[in-house]
Amino acid sequence: MAQQHPEPSAARTAPEPAAPTPPRRRSRPTIGDVAALAQVSKATVSFVVNGRAGVSPRARQRVLEAAAALGWQPSAGARALSTRRAQALGLVIRRPPELLSTDPFFPQFVAGVESGLSPLDYALVLQVVETEEAERNAYERLSHDGRADGVFLTDLQLDDRRPALTDRLGLAALIIGPGRPDSPVPAIGADDAEGVRRAVEHLHALGHRRIGHVGGAEGYVHAEARRRAWMTALDDAGLPEGPLEAADFTGAGGARATHQLLDLPDPPTAILYANDLMAIAGIAAATSRGLRVPQDLSVVGFDDIPLAEYIAPPLTTIRQDVIAWGRAAAQQLVSLTQGHPFEAPALPPVEFVVRVSTAPPAS
Amino acid sequence: MAQQHPEPSAARTAPEPAAPTPPRRRSRPTIGDVAALAQVSKATVSFVVNGRAGVSPRARQRVLEAAAALGWQPSAGARALSTRRAQALGLVIRRPPELLSTDPFFPQFVAGVESGLSPLDYALVLQVVETEEAERNAYERLSHDGRADGVFLTDLQLDDRRPALTDRLGLAALIIGPGRPDSPVPAIGADDAEGVRRAVEHLHALGHRRIGHVGGAEGYVHAEARRRAWMTALDDAGLPEGPLEAADFTGAGGARATHQLLDLPDPPTAILYANDLMAIAGIAAATSRGLRVPQDLSVVGFDDIPLAEYIAPPLTTIRQDVIAWGRAAAQQLVSLTQGHPFEAPALPPVEFVVRVSTAPPAS
Repeated sequence: MAQQHPEPSAARTAPEPAAPTPPRRRSRPTIGDVAALAQVSKATVSFVVNGRAGVSPRARQRVLEAAAALGWQPSAGARALSTRRAQALGLVIRRPPELLSTDPFFPQFVAGVESGLSPLDYALVLQVVETEEAERNAYERLSHDGRADGVFLTDLQLDDRRPALTDRLGLAALIIGPGRPDSPVPAIGADDAEGVRRAVEHLHALGHRRIGHVGGAEGYVHAEARRRAWMTALDDAGLPEGPLEAADFTGAGGARATHQLLDLPDPPTAILYANDLMAIAGIAAATSRGLRVPQDLSVVGFDDIPLAEYIAPPLTTIRQDVIAWGRAAAQQLVSLTQGHPFEAPALPPVEFVVRVSTAPPAS
Repeated sequence: MAQQHPEPSAARTAPEPAAPTPPRRRSRPTIGDVAALAQVSKATVSFVVNGRAGVSPRARQRVLEAAAALGWQPSAGARALSTRRAQALGLVIRRPPELLSTDPFFPQFVAGVESGLSPLDYALVLQVVETEEAERNAYERLSHDGRADGVFLTDLQLDDRRPALTDRLGLAALIIGPGRPDSPVPAIGADDAEGVRRAVEHLHALGHRRIGHVGGAEGYVHAEARRRAWMTALDDAGLPEGPLEAADFTGAGGARATHQLLDLPDPPTAILYANDLMAIAGIAAATSRGLRVPQDLSVVGFDDIPLAEYIAPPLTTIRQDVIAWGRAAAQQLVSLTQGHPFEAPALPPVEFVVRVSTAPPAS
């Protein structure tokens, strides 16, 4: 909710509103008076008042100046009928800013969101916070100050309080990633399990039987989803349980976890990583031990980041079309803010991209 | 400039403002009346009215409800004294959204900006546009709608019109990267030339004499700065001119340019790339031709992205502390929006990080 603050310059030059005279009702300026003074249609005045797109900056300026000059305000009834829109969606990310920069998902997702918002003339309001309290304050301010019409919830945790918070604030919200059945907030997620299943089948078909996993940060719904999918896929393929190392989605974490798996008495011949960044670091870690990828170790990533194709060896990985996902999420969240019911959009299917980092195990 | 729109629910339940009775001046509610009704100090009312940080959402809500109930508005004088703040900075990026996701600079810069804005309780309003017209509209709307108090200008082009535009709009602005002497907008840039000079000296000391360059997209001030720095450094070192390929900062472009340089009759023994992404793709391109890095080709990147340390071989590169840069830029731009003069902040010096991708040339 924003206070009205005509530009100081406009306020100084605008005439004082005429003192009201009875009958009070008739003396009030109408939307028609504002439209006439601003030389625009009443619809344009309404568009400006409701913050909608499609009004030129110049016309907007004239309407605001005319409204200020006449002392006109839209009636409560008109306001109730046409809710003001911030024309913006919010994304609050709770991480140390340094970690944000290592996550290849983030720029792709933002790029997708922007490609969905751009034709609708919406902006994205981004805020990075470090504590749960700052996170709560950020959502409350986005809501109270009318800065955003709806919010994306990313990095959902297993015991996440944000769906209940946005529900209480009456803020439209959309979970990015696998949802939770008991959540009041709808979710848009890619089908992680399908990609993992195909990766395990590919490795199995090549002859691998010891397939390890380097997982993402514990406590996150999507890291958990990929880990569970890997275990299920091994089981479905009739393979024994594989060794698991939890990491944190960073290059450093991926390298460390790879060394731990390769230090095992019976190390895996193939490793599936919860993201490409860890997989690329895993290739370098294996190489530094004198192993050849893929001859001595097969490596599969997850994401298909732009660089995955341009490393040595090019990375076999599970491709999520994160840009399409972000675009669909943006369109769906705008639709939710307009009061439409949630409709799960069809996302491009997860693909499995075979490049050079996987091969039959050395016998 | 925002129109006033009390929350519809508040508007419905708030009593109509009392009809004014003469003497008109005395009948008007004062800031003291609002403070008393809201049970806060007058300073808190002023803070809320001016959109400043440090007010709890609950107190803010009480103030807004009290102001609506009393029909109180801050006087024009008070408004003129204390300009409203959006408490947000704007970043408009003109590129296809797909290209945004391949740029490792972007998430690091945004992370740095956020680390500067987070303690100040500012948000970042992000908009990605594809045409120059959409870009102009975006700045105009950020300004007219009061969505942002100031804007960052990134990817500055040689004939860029945005500094003149933001100057005309009266929008505080800050160029990220090397500035232009004739620009009305101040610039915060890292010292690209110093890093390039040290890279060339390092390669020269190893014995290289044919040092090529894969440049960034033509027309961009920072790509041009790195290219010029490379030419100057070769000259200063008494080395002959090196072969140059212009690329576009992407992995695909880096791979293509690398093949072109290596196809030359007298190919370079070392290549300096305008960013790490192209350098990493260059390593893979050289490897795919049967060359070993660094034994047959030395490779130097630019940026020190988080992955640079975790590829095979680990990348020698020029480190810009983009996070510190973004943080300083955010603090400086907030300061500019508050009317303070520009003061060039001290950025961490550019570092040259020697890892494994550089070695003496094969003789």
